Amino acid sequence: MLHFSRSSSARSVCACTKGKPVSERELSTAAQPSASNRGVVYMAPGVVEVKPIDFPKLELDSTSSPVASERQKRKCEHGAILKVVTTNICGSDQHMVRGRTSLPGGYMVLGHEITGEIVEVGRDVEFMKEGDLCSVPFNIACGRCPACKRGDTGVCLFVNPARAGAAFGYVDMGGWVGGQAEYVMVPYADFNLLKFPDKDRAMEKIADLTLLSDIFPTGFHGAKQAGVEPGSIVYVAGAGPVGLACAASCHLLGAACVIVGDAIPTRLAQARSFGCETIDITSDGDLAHKIHAITGSPDVDCAIDCVGFEARGSGASGGEKPAQVLNDCMGIIREGGQIGIPGLYVTEDPGASTEAAQLGSLNMTFGLAWSKSASMHTGQCPVMKYHRPLMNAIMHDKVRIAEAVNAKIISLDDAPLGYQNFDQGESVKYVMDPHGVTGKVQALG
Amino acid sequence: MLHFSRSSSARSVCACTKGKPVSERELSTAAQPSASNRGVVYMAPGVVEVKPIDFPKLELDSTSSPVASERQKRKCEHGAILKVVTTNICGSDQHMVRGRTSLPGGYMVLGHEITGEIVEVGRDVEFMKEGDLCSVPFNIACGRCPACKRGDTGVCLFVNPARAGAAFGYVDMGGWVGGQAEYVMVPYADFNLLKFPDKDRAMEKIADLTLLSDIFPTGFHGAKQAGVEPGSIVYVAGAGPVGLACAASCHLLGAACVIVGDAIPTRLAQARSFGCETIDITSDGDLAHKIHAITGSPDVDCAIDCVGFEARGSGASGGEKPAQVLNDCMGIIREGGQIGIPGLYVTEDPGASTEAAQLGSLNMTFGLAWSKSASMHTGQCPVMKYHRPLMNAIMHDKVRIAEAVNAKIISLDDAPLGYQNFDQGESVKYVMDPHGVTGKVQALG
Amino acid sequence: MLHFSRSSSARSVCACTKGKPVSERELSTAAQPSASNRGVVYMAPGVVEVKPIDFPKLELDSTSSPVASERQKRKCEHGAILKVVTTNICGSDQHMVRGRTSLPGGYMVLGHEITGEIVEVGRDVEFMKEGDLCSVPFNIACGRCPACKRGDTGVCLFVNPARAGAAFGYVDMGGWVGGQAEYVMVPYADFNLLKFPDKDRAMEKIADLTLLSDIFPTGFHGAKQAGVEPGSIVYVAGAGPVGLACAASCHLLGAACVIVGDAIPTRLAQARSFGCETIDITSDGDLAHKIHAITGSPDVDCAIDCVGFEARGSGASGGEKPAQVLNDCMGIIREGGQIGIPGLYVTEDPGASTEAAQLGSLNMTFGLAWSKSASMHTGQCPVMKYHRPLMNAIMHDKVRIAEAVNAKIISLDDAPLGYQNFDQGESVKYVMDPHGVTGKVQALG
Amino acid sequence: MLHFSRSSSARSVCACTKGKPVSERELSTAAQPSASNRGVVYMAPGVVEVKPIDFPKLELDSTSSPVASERQKRKCEHGAILKVVTTNICGSDQHMVRGRTSLPGGYMVLGHEITGEIVEVGRDVEFMKEGDLCSVPFNIACGRCPACKRGDTGVCLFVNPARAGAAFGYVDMGGWVGGQAEYVMVPYADFNLLKFPDKDRAMEKIADLTLLSDIFPTGFHGAKQAGVEPGSIVYVAGAGPVGLACAASCHLLGAACVIVGDAIPTRLAQARSFGCETIDITSDGDLAHKIHAITGSPDVDCAIDCVGFEARGSGASGGEKPAQVLNDCMGIIREGGQIGIPGLYVTEDPGASTEAAQLGSLNMTFGLAWSKSASMHTGQCPVMKYHRPLMNAIMHDKVRIAEAVNAKIISLDDAPLGYQNFDQGESVKYVMDPHGVTGKVQALG
Repeated sequence: MLHFSRSSSARSVCACTKGKPVSERELSTAAQPSASNRGVVYMAPGVVEVKPIDFPKLELDSTSSPVASERQKRKCEHGAILKVVTTNICGSDQHMVRGRTSLPGGYMVLGHEITGEIVEVGRDVEFMKEGDLCSVPFNIACGRCPACKRGDTGVCLFVNPARAGAAFGYVDMGGWVGGQAEYVMVPYADFNLLKFPDKDRAMEKIADLTLLSDIFPTGFHGAKQAGVEPGSIVYVAGAGPVGLACAASCHLLGAACVIVGDAIPTRLAQARSFGCETIDITSDGDLAHKIHAITGSPDVDCAIDCVGFEARGSGASGGEKPAQVLNDCMGIIREGGQIGIPGLYVTEDPGASTEAAQLGSLNMTFGLAWSKSASMHTGQCPVMKYHRPLMNAIMHDKVRIAEAVNAKIISLDDAPLGYQNFDQGESVKYVMDPHGVTGKVQALG
Repeated sequence: MLHFSRSSSARSVCACTKGKPVSERELSTAAQPSASNRGVVYMAPGVVEVKPIDFPKLELDSTSSPVASERQKRKCEHGAILKVVTTNICGSDQHMVRGRTSLPGGYMVLGHEITGEIVEVGRDVEFMKEGDLCSVPFNIACGRCPACKRGDTGVCLFVNPARAGAAFGYVDMGGWVGGQAEYVMVPYADFNLLKFPDKDRAMEKIADLTLLSDIFPTGFHGAKQAGVEPGSIVYVAGAGPVGLACAASCHLLGAACVIVGDAIPTRLAQARSFGCETIDITSDGDLAHKIHAITGSPDVDCAIDCVGFEARGSGASGGEKPAQVLNDCMGIIREGGQIGIPGLYVTEDPGASTEAAQLGSLNMTFGLAWSKSASMHTGQCPVMKYHRPLMNAIMHDKVRIAEAVNAKIISLDDAPLGYQNFDQGESVKYVMDPHGVTGKVQALG
Repeated sequence: MLHFSRSSSARSVCACTKGKPVSERELSTAAQPSASNRGVVYMAPGVVEVKPIDFPKLELDSTSSPVASERQKRKCEHGAILKVVTTNICGSDQHMVRGRTSLPGGYMVLGHEITGEIVEVGRDVEFMKEGDLCSVPFNIACGRCPACKRGDTGVCLFVNPARAGAAFGYVDMGGWVGGQAEYVMVPYADFNLLKFPDKDRAMEKIADLTLLSDIFPTGFHGAKQAGVEPGSIVYVAGAGPVGLACAASCHLLGAACVIVGDAIPTRLAQARSFGCETIDITSDGDLAHKIHAITGSPDVDCAIDCVGFEARGSGASGGEKPAQVLNDCMGIIREGGQIGIPGLYVTEDPGASTEAAQLGSLNMTFGLAWSKSASMHTGQCPVMKYHRPLMNAIMHDKVRIAEAVNAKIISLDDAPLGYQNFDQGESVKYVMDPHGVTGKVQALG
Repeated sequence: MLHFSRSSSARSVCACTKGKPVSERELSTAAQPSASNRGVVYMAPGVVEVKPIDFPKLELDSTSSPVASERQKRKCEHGAILKVVTTNICGSDQHMVRGRTSLPGGYMVLGHEITGEIVEVGRDVEFMKEGDLCSVPFNIACGRCPACKRGDTGVCLFVNPARAGAAFGYVDMGGWVGGQAEYVMVPYADFNLLKFPDKDRAMEKIADLTLLSDIFPTGFHGAKQAGVEPGSIVYVAGAGPVGLACAASCHLLGAACVIVGDAIPTRLAQARSFGCETIDITSDGDLAHKIHAITGSPDVDCAIDCVGFEARGSGASGGEKPAQVLNDCMGIIREGGQIGIPGLYVTEDPGASTEAAQLGSLNMTFGLAWSKSASMHTGQCPVMKYHRPLMNAIMHDKVRIAEAVNAKIISLDDAPLGYQNFDQGESVKYVMDPHGVTGKVQALG
């Protein structure tokens, strides 16, 4: 799940751009067919299209991007070019597609959840090889800065001049080209890529392994932050793909009871399908009572916010209340408990309903958390901390994460339909197979 | 440092009380002189008096307290009666004395920072003995509930029927009699008390050891929560006794650079006296710039809020801004850093300037913290986690905590003057010696 | 699992004892039937008998014990008397029954794995009540010493004058009467006992819950010490009850692959029954190759020694080699990996085959461990750290520990047969139901 | 401090070598003076000489090394060439120089403790620049393998084909050229190098900063492994440079009392010079009694073995007893305590006095450790985990590590004298300044 910030100057940036949109660029397609490329491009609010795009090079050139914070240029001899095997639609992509960010239409190839096969490596790549099938962490990290050396790859200091942390195909995250495409370039390939040891067995589990690039580690990270252990009683706020991945992670961590709250019945049904208890947050009664009805106690050992700032008030009349889930979590956490917050909170949100929220300032019942000696842990998941052991868990059948999040493999051409269905709250995790190599593509529409 | 909550119904509770104020009670003084007792009693906003009070019994009877949440009665054969050797005035006592809590005048013997010699033990005390000289953690804990078994003695579940956690001499914390007195009863003596191995050497260090009951562990806890380690660059907000104890703890933990911010020049001078850098928060310029001027970097590895909800805006014009210090900390913490928050935040604060703050809800720049993957850790210090090793550090001359906080020993009779001076921002930690046994009493006024 | 040490002066101690064996004591049976008691007594090597024994009192009097280290006397007003619901035979009981310790026959009521219902509490017991159904940790702990306050209840400093740590019914562990009996006294009841919240539901799960007193936490502790996490590849040495409980714990902790090694086919079959891989250590080939054949790699992330000093050399010709399993673990652990060692190692072992081993000194390939930056973690499990969350895991059907260890409930009278079968390597965990209250008793023989 | 293993086939390897000793090689000195180079070469047991050597290239070619395990060849465009500012003699260098390893004379440029200024970077170096003044961790690490990603740079999997972990100038550690020279090549420069932010201030502190390449982090690592915290009572075995650095680290970590044991009076005096207590291990009496005489208790919270396998029995008659210090540590550690073992233990030691020790097998009193629930932590320090914060501690005057270990700066030409003096037990840490740029060189002899 990705962080972004909205810029209030989005339109003016858009108007005065020196960059050219995808459609006006001269594509550098070489003679051989493998050098062509197509990707999912954000065109306008609510509109994505599959368009021809440049075949990736071992360099980054986003100097003509209309988004000021993305402009950088660098050689990437440490990079690798991947033939994309699967690439997923993420809830955070929807922020851009809904038009609530500063991203102008026609420029950005979307996609930061990528699994692929290496077709070319730069000269500085020593250990990854052509033909390796790999998972790509959504966070782009250099492996050489103090943050990366600490393992904090989500806030790498060297890959994004504008701020700490970068990602593929995301506004304000460094200008790196997204991976909802046939081919994509991954910088610092030796550091970033996770090679699957056995390609054939990996292709059998590809619907699970594709979730290693983001939501499985992200959900797992939330659970770890919250201190989930064998025997824990856990509340997971949100039953979207990250919430479901988090709930599945809680089970993997040995939680005794995993309670998932959401407003959408199909999502709650999905959570129940793999052993979670569920709470309809739109029904009458407060959260503590609903939890008590399930466990016999009004509080939980661990709480995880998989919703973020787009939270809505509970109950039938709830409008947008950005601190709602945070305050819920502080309300039900037990004394000495911990709250994991993989859900996204932003520094600017001009579309928010209150002036404070527009400045990213939330009305939090912090005194309540303090009275309980609670801890709160925030931020993007550093995928690399978790993807290797979670791969092992998948390969040894310890977790069925694709089933948990209801992954469905579709073609690249069905991307627009996938975005549309997902935006309407469908309880499906869309995975695209741009080359039709998984043998599991289902047609939409 | 103690948590409390204010009740808006304070006055009416006061009017309809069945309890009797201290002055109307028939004192249970026995024939022998040792059975008399005197203590510091809160009388009215701004007024404390030293009054005759009951000699302690091995029981709790607060059933007639005018504060509803304090009413309980129980036998305490697990308790010990201590002759108080030293007892300190704490900043959190001032909340009550300023009249901003629900505490009515005339009832409460104040004081939760206690060091004393055992004069009697209950029949169920096995390991502590008459004559033992001991430090008393301000948190009263049973040692038998799930929270205590986890080490979370600050949120003991069994000593306060109204909520988790209890303390001596504090409103809404269980009705236990305070220790700014000649004698006091400590329940669960085997569990709570820390015996000093060598009484004579302990008396030599009594000005340091007296700080083990609260502010030294509390400051240390904040530093540990913030992840202070050898080489850390740290910001400590607040140079009151807890802030100074925290800064000294950061040095003990090996921090490379400890920067202390406050508005009062004498407090900043005190911080400089033991090797801290200081920032005058009332001067022009933002905090990040001031930190940069000291360290060459605008952010810090660790930040500790030793101020709490009574924070004021920085700059000359700052009024009360309860989230100011929290937001400062979120602003200057580095990526992946941690914020320790020993400073008190309350669930109700009827005297606050905004309606949200009255309900304990704060306007926090939470999105900024999230963008940095920061963690926040709250709550009262569980003193028992730290008091034994910190005692060792004192006895082996590794830390001069009395000097750091500028401890001054006064008589019990000077308590009113001590409260007054401390309230006016004097950079002194007042320690009372009710029996004049330390040989270090300084007269005030 | 219990530690013990053998004394070479066992026989002489036996000869000059002032104590009386069980059979010669005047039983303090009161008039009412409930005051009678019967227990399993060690009589001679290979011989245990069910005998009438004293009804427990709220005191300890082992002053006449023939084993010097056990002699102590104390009041136990903090204790509770339990009607034993279930009590298990442990592998460490076999050490005594095989006659390899200093324990003389006729004195010791065996049994440290106890679950029961409170029938009486001492006056210092505040929170446990008559009728509560509870699990009893095998480690007796005071809850008041520095070790207990740190959570190290396995090395409590105050319950055994001879050494750190105590247990029920075990030689050299403080002289506390064992619980393979109808009734038993548990000291420090508020601290030690874990109450099951719902008695009826607990009785349904009693075959699982009875394992909370020792082997489930002990196996879990080994896994935690070894750093088992989601995705870990783990080797568990030994498929006795503790090894099986450890393997089940590894699964609960999310291990990707749990490999169990043992020499007894029925035990390996038992391990396979709940999803473990297995290695027959008596077959040809070295351990690393056998692991490689399963996982594709010769090393593991985590290794756990559930065998201890009675290890035998692998291969057909292996005699007693006390360091065999330790060296195996050091041989297969990966770089930076951790080794958990719940298996018992002793300070004296006069029956060992080498002089060094008799003095508890082992020939360890320590240089190999060092070259891998491995860590080793030893000691008895502090049950209290784990029993509450593991109870939650049982009650929410997250783990089927009784099935994993093949628990079988028998009558108290069948204790001698149970000891005999277990000693012959049967893959069964024997649980006795002295009062026939579980409704699940199976007859033996 | 470095690990090595001795090969019993050392001589035959030596006889059949295809490699050429340093003296027979054609030096690739370019026309310009800066391209010449000189280094300290091991010639024969007890003999090192300063010889002309190749100017470093951005490649590794040890294919002609007479030591089989060192043979590898690779391009190092990720590397940097450093002008060596300081380079230290390490106790582990002495193992080679004493002739107890498989290293033949005439080949190896010694030295793994290096600080220098970058004079050239490879084309794949992105963030380090010519002119940067840097500390070089002794462990060579790729930053791209699973071990490095976990932070375990001491057991990097990709830089040494023969085993996990590599180092400069050390037999069996990958064939990388040592840095006791004028110039040296450092691979993976972006990852490995720690840049000092301010060159001028760094040169003022160079005698301290030079210790960041090995012994300060190594000693600190031992202290961290042992769990040293504020208030700890610590025993450090060995007062050589690593032991002294460990003792200073314990003080930095806030230990209340640091007790250092050694047999050499000048080393003990050095330890006392910065506030340690000391024990002469050659005097009569056992270690526990000596500790009791200092602290009043026979055990310690933390024990650190800074001696390793070359330990000798205590008392006047003690010969070589490789497990002596380990057994000492297990004897005095308190219940639940931890033992850090930065001291080197080897997998083969053909010169050892017993057959078991020759195979790296030690007679350890493991049962005693087990009875105390002790943990043991082994292995080489991963320098990168610690060097940045320790640099901060040095630059902010929190630690005077050069004083603690008695660092003395000498010329490169005095290397043979330095080796000789150090071997005779002089309590000095020798630091060489090959270019005379520190302005602090003292002449020897």
